[in-house]
Amino acid sequence: MSLMAALRDAHPEPQSIDVLERLKTICDSQGLGALGQRLTSLSQLVAPDMAALHAEFQGVPRGTHSVHRAANHVVDLGGKRLRPLCVALASRVGAGFNDAAKQLGVAAELVHNATLLHDDVVDLGDTRRGEPSARALYGNAAAIFAGDWLLIEALRRVRSTSFLDVLDRLLEIIDAMISAEALQLENRGQARVSAESYFQVVEGKTAALFRWALLAGGRAGELASTECEALENYGLHLGIAFQLVDDLLDYSGERASLGKELFVDLREGKTTYPLILALEEDPSLLPSLHAVATAHGRLDGLQQEWNRIIMALQAPSIAQRCRKLAQRQIELGIEALAACPNGQAKEALITVARATVHRMN
Amino acid sequence: MSLMAALRDAHPEPQSIDVLERLKTICDSQGLGALGQRLTSLSQLVAPDMAALHAEFQGVPRGTHSVHRAANHVVDLGGKRLRPLCVALASRVGAGFNDAAKQLGVAAELVHNATLLHDDVVDLGDTRRGEPSARALYGNAAAIFAGDWLLIEALRRVRSTSFLDVLDRLLEIIDAMISAEALQLENRGQARVSAESYFQVVEGKTAALFRWALLAGGRAGELASTECEALENYGLHLGIAFQLVDDLLDYSGERASLGKELFVDLREGKTTYPLILALEEDPSLLPSLHAVATAHGRLDGLQQEWNRIIMALQAPSIAQRCRKLAQRQIELGIEALAACPNGQAKEALITVARATVHRMN
Repeated sequence: MSLMAALRDAHPEPQSIDVLERLKTICDSQGLGALGQRLTSLSQLVAPDMAALHAEFQGVPRGTHSVHRAANHVVDLGGKRLRPLCVALASRVGAGFNDAAKQLGVAAELVHNATLLHDDVVDLGDTRRGEPSARALYGNAAAIFAGDWLLIEALRRVRSTSFLDVLDRLLEIIDAMISAEALQLENRGQARVSAESYFQVVEGKTAALFRWALLAGGRAGELASTECEALENYGLHLGIAFQLVDDLLDYSGERASLGKELFVDLREGKTTYPLILALEEDPSLLPSLHAVATAHGRLDGLQQEWNRIIMALQAPSIAQRCRKLAQRQIELGIEALAACPNGQAKEALITVARATVHRMN
Repeated sequence: MSLMAALRDAHPEPQSIDVLERLKTICDSQGLGALGQRLTSLSQLVAPDMAALHAEFQGVPRGTHSVHRAANHVVDLGGKRLRPLCVALASRVGAGFNDAAKQLGVAAELVHNATLLHDDVVDLGDTRRGEPSARALYGNAAAIFAGDWLLIEALRRVRSTSFLDVLDRLLEIIDAMISAEALQLENRGQARVSAESYFQVVEGKTAALFRWALLAGGRAGELASTECEALENYGLHLGIAFQLVDDLLDYSGERASLGKELFVDLREGKTTYPLILALEEDPSLLPSLHAVATAHGRLDGLQQEWNRIIMALQAPSIAQRCRKLAQRQIELGIEALAACPNGQAKEALITVARATVHRMN
């Protein structure tokens, strides 16, 4: 039995370990043996923390009404639990994982889950993590209130830690997340979105919560403010890299093998970085992009335009440029960690960052 | 020029004063001269507080994106501002209106506005306070994020006061509000809802935030915990009475003269107290009620059932029983105030409570 499997058996269903294992398989298949080995040590380091977090997720109140069932559904879907993993590792850069880190880790994931619930209503999304979305199962009304509920549950957990500055930062960051959603809504259906506007959305929508997760873990681990700032900076770059790869995967055939829907962003009229690059490489794409972006998902009769865009997006140069930029963000994030004490946890954060560029789902 | 008009001119657009003036007119026309006079003193007492609150509402950040415009739209609609009025009066039962009371008053209204934004998306509501709703003007997506944004803005303002127990209570109360929305969703489309279930919804959906407004004002006014509890208790009963009258007004011809839509609850499949009473008085209504409640607003072909229900609801006994129960709640609320120091502010709270039963919009 592999170490990974042993760890998994020791801690029922710690889903993030699954993710690390899948990443390890990818590293092995891509000849990234060293990274694969580092993922093994990372799993060893955080296995007890992730098990504690997993148990805590079970403690999110269950309810019988459709609102609570919608919320529980999203929480139970699990996902990568990357934000709690970041909280745990950041705490271990300092004094170690403790109850505050556990509450803050759960809160980071619950805020993320709350945004998924509202996003699915806004985007009319019917699937989430390969399963029917909460709104598809329980309706829009239940999904909206479920998002509200998880947000409040997250804030109560943060408040319970008595790290008031961390609570204040979370309120600021949720504000930034909403502003980013607002900007993204405004950009929707536009064929030409500036890279500046795209990165503004990414910083608010994705990177802000990663920043907070790292800050929260650092504060739980009693780190000094310069170290917490360094962790936040790492979180910012990790978040941008994560979103860049996420956007790329929406156009990548590799994802289809995992049963995921492709081209969701394009269908929803969302301009992401690969599309910005494709338009930059071939400005004559604009009329096709305009036709698809303004079709509000009604693509009958636009087969030619659609095919043209898909072909342009799947050009190897797009993926290369995206991954290169993600790689650059990762390097900046790793540089930021210089201000933090050396040790296993810092190494693990570096591993998480490197693995993010190679992830396939 | 009347005193009311003079006050209004001195403080541009303090909308709650308008409400008090309208109430006074009603009192005069109903021969409730004494109550009308008390409303005049109440206006005098709170005019500067309401002007300060009004100025603070102008300070809610403006934004250019549809999300922020949707939020600003609801805030600008104004409404009765009854929750901020409660915060102001409760603070004056103690040491007086101050900056904390101002922030808490604005927060109470913003939480209320956030729920209106999400409720309109859930209920597909196209009008709000006689104007197009935010979702009608800016779309569901903007309205959902706008609600999220106002909720966070409210929490930040409460946090800024450093009354952490008041923040904790608000988080608890928003949780209770969501549970009530969950129960109401579950009850929707059911012809027979128990009075117990109805009052459970009312306590969570409406009375909880009134309770909090009174507690918040009491804490800002540095009252002792027994006095704050008494205020909360008053808020609970005031909130129940307010909702009972609100539900009654949905079936009342008087409201039509204000340009308000009637029978909204019935159309949305929501069972309110008048409907529970109508069914109690005439159990043979059940099949008609069932047909309308499960029609999801598609009432073509149900004219006969619809008319039968409307006629039953407009029986004088229904309005009498509703107002009587509201009156009883008001008396309980006023009794609770016995634990608070006597004075102008307490008298004003008593006036607000009495006027609530007589309000027409």
